[in-house]
Amino acid sequence: MTVRAAVAGASGYAGGELLRLLLGHPEVEIGAVTGHSNAGQRLAALQPHLAPLADRVLAPTSPEALAGHDVVFLALPHGQSAAVAEQLGPEVLVVDCGADFRLKDAADWEAFYGSPHAGTWPYGLPELPGGRAALQGSKRIAVPGCYPTAVSLALFPAYAAGLAEPEAVIVAASGTSGAGKALKPHLLGSEVMGSMSPYGVGGGHRHTPEMIQNLSAAAGEPVTVSFTPTLAPMPRGILATCSAKARPGTDAEAVRAAYEKALAGEPFVRLLPEGQWPTTAAVYGSNAAQIQVALDPAAGRIIAISAIDNLTKGTAGGAVQSMNIALGLPEELGLSATGVAP
Amino acid sequence: MTVRAAVAGASGYAGGELLRLLLGHPEVEIGAVTGHSNAGQRLAALQPHLAPLADRVLAPTSPEALAGHDVVFLALPHGQSAAVAEQLGPEVLVVDCGADFRLKDAADWEAFYGSPHAGTWPYGLPELPGGRAALQGSKRIAVPGCYPTAVSLALFPAYAAGLAEPEAVIVAASGTSGAGKALKPHLLGSEVMGSMSPYGVGGGHRHTPEMIQNLSAAAGEPVTVSFTPTLAPMPRGILATCSAKARPGTDAEAVRAAYEKALAGEPFVRLLPEGQWPTTAAVYGSNAAQIQVALDPAAGRIIAISAIDNLTKGTAGGAVQSMNIALGLPEELGLSATGVAP
Amino acid sequence: MTVRAAVAGASGYAGGELLRLLLGHPEVEIGAVTGHSNAGQRLAALQPHLAPLADRVLAPTSPEALAGHDVVFLALPHGQSAAVAEQLGPEVLVVDCGADFRLKDAADWEAFYGSPHAGTWPYGLPELPGGRAALQGSKRIAVPGCYPTAVSLALFPAYAAGLAEPEAVIVAASGTSGAGKALKPHLLGSEVMGSMSPYGVGGGHRHTPEMIQNLSAAAGEPVTVSFTPTLAPMPRGILATCSAKARPGTDAEAVRAAYEKALAGEPFVRLLPEGQWPTTAAVYGSNAAQIQVALDPAAGRIIAISAIDNLTKGTAGGAVQSMNIALGLPEELGLSATGVAP
Amino acid sequence: MTVRAAVAGASGYAGGELLRLLLGHPEVEIGAVTGHSNAGQRLAALQPHLAPLADRVLAPTSPEALAGHDVVFLALPHGQSAAVAEQLGPEVLVVDCGADFRLKDAADWEAFYGSPHAGTWPYGLPELPGGRAALQGSKRIAVPGCYPTAVSLALFPAYAAGLAEPEAVIVAASGTSGAGKALKPHLLGSEVMGSMSPYGVGGGHRHTPEMIQNLSAAAGEPVTVSFTPTLAPMPRGILATCSAKARPGTDAEAVRAAYEKALAGEPFVRLLPEGQWPTTAAVYGSNAAQIQVALDPAAGRIIAISAIDNLTKGTAGGAVQSMNIALGLPEELGLSATGVAP
Repeated sequence: MTVRAAVAGASGYAGGELLRLLLGHPEVEIGAVTGHSNAGQRLAALQPHLAPLADRVLAPTSPEALAGHDVVFLALPHGQSAAVAEQLGPEVLVVDCGADFRLKDAADWEAFYGSPHAGTWPYGLPELPGGRAALQGSKRIAVPGCYPTAVSLALFPAYAAGLAEPEAVIVAASGTSGAGKALKPHLLGSEVMGSMSPYGVGGGHRHTPEMIQNLSAAAGEPVTVSFTPTLAPMPRGILATCSAKARPGTDAEAVRAAYEKALAGEPFVRLLPEGQWPTTAAVYGSNAAQIQVALDPAAGRIIAISAIDNLTKGTAGGAVQSMNIALGLPEELGLSATGVAP
Repeated sequence: MTVRAAVAGASGYAGGELLRLLLGHPEVEIGAVTGHSNAGQRLAALQPHLAPLADRVLAPTSPEALAGHDVVFLALPHGQSAAVAEQLGPEVLVVDCGADFRLKDAADWEAFYGSPHAGTWPYGLPELPGGRAALQGSKRIAVPGCYPTAVSLALFPAYAAGLAEPEAVIVAASGTSGAGKALKPHLLGSEVMGSMSPYGVGGGHRHTPEMIQNLSAAAGEPVTVSFTPTLAPMPRGILATCSAKARPGTDAEAVRAAYEKALAGEPFVRLLPEGQWPTTAAVYGSNAAQIQVALDPAAGRIIAISAIDNLTKGTAGGAVQSMNIALGLPEELGLSATGVAP
Repeated sequence: MTVRAAVAGASGYAGGELLRLLLGHPEVEIGAVTGHSNAGQRLAALQPHLAPLADRVLAPTSPEALAGHDVVFLALPHGQSAAVAEQLGPEVLVVDCGADFRLKDAADWEAFYGSPHAGTWPYGLPELPGGRAALQGSKRIAVPGCYPTAVSLALFPAYAAGLAEPEAVIVAASGTSGAGKALKPHLLGSEVMGSMSPYGVGGGHRHTPEMIQNLSAAAGEPVTVSFTPTLAPMPRGILATCSAKARPGTDAEAVRAAYEKALAGEPFVRLLPEGQWPTTAAVYGSNAAQIQVALDPAAGRIIAISAIDNLTKGTAGGAVQSMNIALGLPEELGLSATGVAP
Repeated sequence: MTVRAAVAGASGYAGGELLRLLLGHPEVEIGAVTGHSNAGQRLAALQPHLAPLADRVLAPTSPEALAGHDVVFLALPHGQSAAVAEQLGPEVLVVDCGADFRLKDAADWEAFYGSPHAGTWPYGLPELPGGRAALQGSKRIAVPGCYPTAVSLALFPAYAAGLAEPEAVIVAASGTSGAGKALKPHLLGSEVMGSMSPYGVGGGHRHTPEMIQNLSAAAGEPVTVSFTPTLAPMPRGILATCSAKARPGTDAEAVRAAYEKALAGEPFVRLLPEGQWPTTAAVYGSNAAQIQVALDPAAGRIIAISAIDNLTKGTAGGAVQSMNIALGLPEELGLSATGVAP
């Protein structure tokens, strides 16, 4: 099977990562690459690392440009996916890397995004309970946010096993590509290098309701989330430090066993050997997630830490993995669990 | 008054930072600079940034070398300070940048450091309640650890005002100089750049009992601490993200007021204007601490974040500030609240 | 003597560094701080590292705002200094950090900057032959460019001693603050970290004629310059690798002797001990320049390398040093030769 | 054809990169992985990014461990390859990533390495004139040094076309992985981040004779090389800025034409569109080389700049590319020209 794929929003970081992965996918042929303000420019200038596509010219994002593909990846600013998607036929697999179709609760959407809710699509995190089944044969996929990917993978085993109290505290560090290519002063290299800085503190980050949705589903009860994202001086990677009070009677063996069971057989998510902790370097450029967990007996908390590449497993890799499942291809096709390190 | 100061352990990062600050202190004359394995070498090679001291040669750390000074700073590996200090007369001000004399509880010391407890000296964090008074006229000072400095400054106002439940959750990112100059593979530049990595997870970091000591003192009751340190790809700086459940009835105004009151008049610790968050870049190379606090209404938690330079306010700057207080000099002498940015 | 100083262009990196240094200058009182698009904003948001000036509000850059100062520093985009300067009286010391008054040759100016030449002011690099004398008592100072500062300090001793052929080849790496705070895609942290990239290759960089001017003056004959600047993944610092063919008969001893003689007694420029090479880390945040030189016998070339902080010795520090000389203050006042490292 | 490959020296950076690439090579099965001081350890700890090999245990580097493979890659310290290679049969393809067999001139070897010359093997830079033919069917391959790869690709077109004078001046910046995993103080992250530093200045770097060998062969006459390597604050990548005086009468069109001709059809080496310059970020983790060239009319020099990943095209990727040629496999198999960016 050869799959013809288009990428809408090909000039940004998510679009570039999609193209990088699709170039290495043995069953994908890259069709249209589209953009908005950069339409008409060559990829050589916009994405100089994509050497094999250097001579491709960005088409405007339009129904005409996106027609005739088996799969269309959307890497658009939030709020723009619905309009594009509804012009694509129901037989086309649409994989949305934006937030538009991730949340089930319309009120959450409106509270955090300030616009009408577009709907809910099958959620592209196959490692969650029931996650794979929801994607098989689907023609619409909502790719999770990068932080929710990291956080959900770190904490769902504890919640699914009933080991943690429903109040999660999360502090995550992200590389700057998570903020996109927007020209904002605090994203300048001079500001970023040598600096750690928090943002969206106090519950305001838009990925918060998505984490709540995933963790509550795993727990079978509402989970509150205190989420603090920080910007780290690196281009890629998320390290999510997640914790919750352990339910009474929980011991370290039970925690370990729950994680081993929940993550067994996953091709991309790996529970590290005891004593070894995740690093973002180890998953750089790969679709892998590293997980480790510990029980702090003095504080009575389960500490689960995950490392992913925000652009790969956190965005484009997760998108391709979900596409593979939806199309009935081998789940690992075109993806690698090997990081680029050092 | 001219103060003659010696630095024992002058080849490491803490020793280098002490010398950098003392070079700019108008009342200090730098006397002996000593080392252990590097004795006999010139500072030009060991600390090439200390141009005015380039021709100084490291003496061996010995009673003879350290004799005849008004102040002796110790920047030695943990466990070595007591032996050196007891050879210095009671009239000499000894400022220990190591951990040996920080903890009041001998059992804590032994549990975390595995050696007999050497004792407890006045604690060099003047911003804590009663902190300044304890230092005035003292001849022995235990400089706080870098993480406890950042964490205590961020959370003591909430605990002192009785606004927070006694279970703190802390995730801190530190620049690599916090790990010292030890030649360990994970500290190589190739490993560090582009990577965030946790360590000492689950309650094992030696700074944990020191944080518990400080926060419990502020709260007037035992506080548990879940502390996760992470190594960030930057040479200096600590960003500490600290949170605790808000006591029932606590509102944002009460939190703000508590922090304004607790930090009012501090020369180096600054509560930022509402909406602005600390960054490690802003305090780079300075003795400043930036603090901000928020109440997350959905999660019911107080989130307090601090940024310091681990080598300056977190070590050598705190040491000089405490020296100034102990000697009756103006507290800000030779120190700056201005960061080196960008 | 207390000097009242204004800074025009206080929201950029050069302006911020000027303020950082002036805050530590014992004879300077900071008067007006002005900006253009940021007028009306508080420095707390624009320059969060300048804690002591947090509550200052940027005035618009206007004759009224700049009136009544002993010294006015201009940190404006190229081409704007002349208009501001001519509104300041001849008794005011005007120190221009821009390029407008650096070049003596109007044709050079017009070829590289594309606008009419504004004139030539005394050149603020006191270490050059005759440099100090030209600044004493001057009321107008053109601060050198950052690259010309690094390159001229590295090569003038060889040319002044007649040891080098008049064809210099220079490759320099600069931290990103040298490019200013402009919001350009290639300056985003995501693009900069992990990347070295050249620009202005082939003779087009505007600092080239300034280097030619300085080296030709030292040599007493026209010197050609092949200059390639590169952007390095660090916020500050310039490492300039400069070379030229050695004149026949030149040996290593003669080269060393020429550098020792040319740099003897300089407070900020230091010829390193043989075998030690400059690093930008060692001069971070300081007004120091480190220099080393070698003779490559096989290639027949003199290799001179310098390291400076582009914002300090390369801009604001050089400006303050020149101000000190012009005003008859001690040249080192308010400046440090100690770097902030690691 | 399935090729069974062993990697000797699998715990270092070159060994890790070889394994990363071989994991993605469709015709390679990874056999023995061996080490010296790390023998007995699992790759999970030594190379945490190589998730699919996590449970592999390093065998000691011995004839027994290396027996029974079609290809043996040597990633050993200089001077150790000959002893290992001579125990491998002539039917085994031995690919040496060390320096031992790169130089043709025994006197050069002895002058720069201080030990007896082991011999000369076919040189694994297929893009050089005659390079591919020398590798076809070969059972012994000397992989070029990382710097010589970058420099030779940048300058051989100018020399092969007779456009440049035989005196090359090269300044190159390398990521820290080029220095390997050795535990040296100047390679610590705290020292490296924020710093550019030169080393081996004045003709002493061991890669110099290899550059001279390649450029002289291209020129058909002896070429001198002034080579200055610098360490840049990034984990990977080399940016080589190379120049030479243009021969009289050379114009920009002739230079461009020479490069277009010399690099036409190369799968991994790409002459960028005019006006676009190489960046190390664009080739991160890939086997690609980006090249650009300009003629500086004022200085009369040809400036050629290349960017490669030192571990990929500069070591392990070049090794695999040469293996493919030697074995008659498609040259691009298992290799990518797509960088991992941002």
